[in-house]
Amino acid sequence: MIEDKNPQRTSLSELGEFGLIEHLTKDFRITQKSTVKGVGDDAAVLDFKNKKVVVSNDLLVEGVHFDLAYMPLKHLGYKAVMVNLSDIYAMNATATQITVSIAVSNRFPLEAMEELYAGIALACKLYNVDMVGGDTTSSNKGLLISVTAIGEAKEEDLVYRNGAQPNDLLVVTGDIGGAYMGLQVLEREKEVFKVNPNNQPDLSMYTYIVERQLKPEARKDIPELLRELGVKPTSMIDISDGLSSEAIHLCKESGVGCNLYEDKIPLDPQVISTCEEFELNSTMVALSGGEDYELLLTISQDDYPKVKANPHLSIIGHITPESEGMHLITRANTKIPLKARGWNALKEEE
Amino acid sequence: MIEDKNPQRTSLSELGEFGLIEHLTKDFRITQKSTVKGVGDDAAVLDFKNKKVVVSNDLLVEGVHFDLAYMPLKHLGYKAVMVNLSDIYAMNATATQITVSIAVSNRFPLEAMEELYAGIALACKLYNVDMVGGDTTSSNKGLLISVTAIGEAKEEDLVYRNGAQPNDLLVVTGDIGGAYMGLQVLEREKEVFKVNPNNQPDLSMYTYIVERQLKPEARKDIPELLRELGVKPTSMIDISDGLSSEAIHLCKESGVGCNLYEDKIPLDPQVISTCEEFELNSTMVALSGGEDYELLLTISQDDYPKVKANPHLSIIGHITPESEGMHLITRANTKIPLKARGWNALKEEE
Repeated sequence: MIEDKNPQRTSLSELGEFGLIEHLTKDFRITQKSTVKGVGDDAAVLDFKNKKVVVSNDLLVEGVHFDLAYMPLKHLGYKAVMVNLSDIYAMNATATQITVSIAVSNRFPLEAMEELYAGIALACKLYNVDMVGGDTTSSNKGLLISVTAIGEAKEEDLVYRNGAQPNDLLVVTGDIGGAYMGLQVLEREKEVFKVNPNNQPDLSMYTYIVERQLKPEARKDIPELLRELGVKPTSMIDISDGLSSEAIHLCKESGVGCNLYEDKIPLDPQVISTCEEFELNSTMVALSGGEDYELLLTISQDDYPKVKANPHLSIIGHITPESEGMHLITRANTKIPLKARGWNALKEEE
Repeated sequence: MIEDKNPQRTSLSELGEFGLIEHLTKDFRITQKSTVKGVGDDAAVLDFKNKKVVVSNDLLVEGVHFDLAYMPLKHLGYKAVMVNLSDIYAMNATATQITVSIAVSNRFPLEAMEELYAGIALACKLYNVDMVGGDTTSSNKGLLISVTAIGEAKEEDLVYRNGAQPNDLLVVTGDIGGAYMGLQVLEREKEVFKVNPNNQPDLSMYTYIVERQLKPEARKDIPELLRELGVKPTSMIDISDGLSSEAIHLCKESGVGCNLYEDKIPLDPQVISTCEEFELNSTMVALSGGEDYELLLTISQDDYPKVKANPHLSIIGHITPESEGMHLITRANTKIPLKARGWNALKEEE
């Protein structure tokens, strides 16, 4: 399986906490104008001048949010950053800095931490954010990663969850359900691997969905695209828990309802074929799968000409008055209430 | 012992993640002008105008940083905030916001989380900071708390670790060693409790040091005091790991040496008497004990008249050229090299 086969093992205790931080962070470079002082003091110092500062924080726990049996550490580091940057982009803001804290048990050698930080460094480079601080500590069991992401925006550009209005269009970026189906494939391979460790999995049929799970990309391009198109969403949220749950979130915060059309949900062909293989309903997967880190937004109907036919944006429904409730309009044109089933509900159902 | 005896138990799974966050954060109030939007969106929005932004992040792990056998959850919440605010004050900055993420196993009922957040809320109130976000997730084992603290300062007020100059005075705030001796007392009582759970410990002789361990206070007052006195330190660091380790840090970052005088180290009488009881060397405890969250700073000799006889500030030594090294000058006037032994080294020695 995809795992760290690095034969070198340097004990973390040889380095100590300060040595470890120094070692892991020495190759990170500062590129943001707003970073005045990064790693190495009691705190980082940032300067946003007249811009608003946007802050988000997430915690990833081994055995809950990731399984190292199929998640290479470098990918994990990358994903931990993505999860947080996604929150910043969902504010229509630009991500500028992160802090990373890890708690790690002795079973991890230094080389494992280097892999993890290589993923973090790659994410910082590709997304143009500075790593400016954090903490490294021990845990008695497993690995934990806490990332705080910081971003900036002009006040007039910020988009909250609570601005959706009746008749606004409901828009989703990219396609969804891939990350969940990628996980299904990886979990199946893990079981095969347990039975026969020499079995080499052929994942070539599942490249896209496995990558959606292991190496999700936060939608840095969407705030930029929206600016180019001259569209300011009326509300926006990132899809970490599943389309259904996030749509409900947006509607509740905005005090509105919505109609979401099953046939408009953007699905990759690989998601559809893998759903057939696993005998899962692809709409259920899209609604409840989660972890795609796409964005869900609402825009005024007046902006329709600017977004129509854009390959990154799919109009999947519209906002209604709160009294009309939140519904899925199925292909058979029946109206069923949207439920926030989330990831776990879906698993229980299988 | 000091523990949560609340008989009510509400399962966390009844609430779900969003319900839990909403429940725990509903009583937090926004008081900072720089907080534009707190908990409840993808990210918090802050506005620091022309001030510099200061960010720090720490992770506290059960079994590593705290033991719930003697650490009440409310105190733990309070302490988790203090540990981070201390980093902000060490930059000579004002703390303004925090984000708090927790990972918690099912063994904790809702009431336990309420206790934890009550401590966080009390810290926010007393230190005038806003709680503006975070994450609540499950862990398979134990409790983890990640706090990010954010603060602000005028550029000209910021103090880094690297500004100490030869002949500067080395100054410590408050008194040190108390937190470590408080822990010794608590660990002894825990052993007694294991043998006889009905035994009621009499901690009245140890009130100060037990409080130093369980409810440390970050030195919010020191940046304020320094401004009143018209003193800007040349360097500053917070004492989380022990005086010796932090002095070495400051000196290394500044490229200087130091002489630290044993007889000048400020010790509370309760630390001295408890050290005698436990047959520990009080100087060793002060140098290596840690967790006092006092500040260690250097000031120009010209500022001596402004700080002398101030009850919050003790001059414990002076900075030397780097070539002279870092030394402790003992009561017997012998010069021994300073070592960063830290907490663990001290424990191994017992």
